[in-house]
Amino acid sequence: MKLLESIKFDSNGLIPAIAQDDATGDVLMMAWMNRESLEETVTTRRAVYWSRSRKKLWRKGEESGHVQEVKSVSIDCDADVVLLRVNQIGGAACHTGHRSCFFREVNSQGDGFIEKNDIVFDPKNVYKK
Amino acid sequence: MKLLESIKFDSNGLIPAIAQDDATGDVLMMAWMNRESLEETVTTRRAVYWSRSRKKLWRKGEESGHVQEVKSVSIDCDADVVLLRVNQIGGAACHTGHRSCFFREVNSQGDGFIEKNDIVFDPKNVYKK
Repeated sequence: MKLLESIKFDSNGLIPAIAQDDATGDVLMMAWMNRESLEETVTTRRAVYWSRSRKKLWRKGEESGHVQEVKSVSIDCDADVVLLRVNQIGGAACHTGHRSCFFREVNSQGDGFIEKNDIVFDPKNVYKK
Repeated sequence: MKLLESIKFDSNGLIPAIAQDDATGDVLMMAWMNRESLEETVTTRRAVYWSRSRKKLWRKGEESGHVQEVKSVSIDCDADVVLLRVNQIGGAACHTGHRSCFFREVNSQGDGFIEKNDIVFDPKNVYKK
């Protein structure tokens, strides 16, 4: 894919990818992509990441069914970060059941977190393994 | 800062930090923070990153005056990504003058980019060096 020639992957062949809810604008998660996952994401319009822990392609939602339908793919000025706008099927991007992975906000004293009440599902009912 | 004990910095001592416009929800940029820059960000409520190219603290807006007033700091489920909601002074986060660094969207054929028309300023008038 000619497009990918301009993308700057890091020394591990990866690029950070931010997923943003296309309807609400909420930032849902950040994960990593390699060349293959970015190409598949652009082609299939489904978000595909690279799992650094499992060292394999991570087709988001492959187990839970909670896929991310990709509405747009953008890159930043340095061509080293990807931004997806997605329709998050199932309503939650996070494996914890929270709508967004960013459910912990630093409190005003800067010494702890406030946890958001945005749980959409119980992970026990979604992930069988 | 006790809070930072739970944050997972990578092998280079860095963590990705996403800046999102607090008013519009637009994702403005992604940069990197080390422990010192995150602590200063939380304490001063101004975004401070770590410049990997210049290898020093990057107090966003220190040259242009276009600082980012920090409205909230969140971390993700794995505690290895930071999300800031900011008020972007000057209206543009990108050194190109674009409002967001993500001003290039992959076109529907997947073989090129559509550039957004969101230029706020002429960099020549902002950066003297």
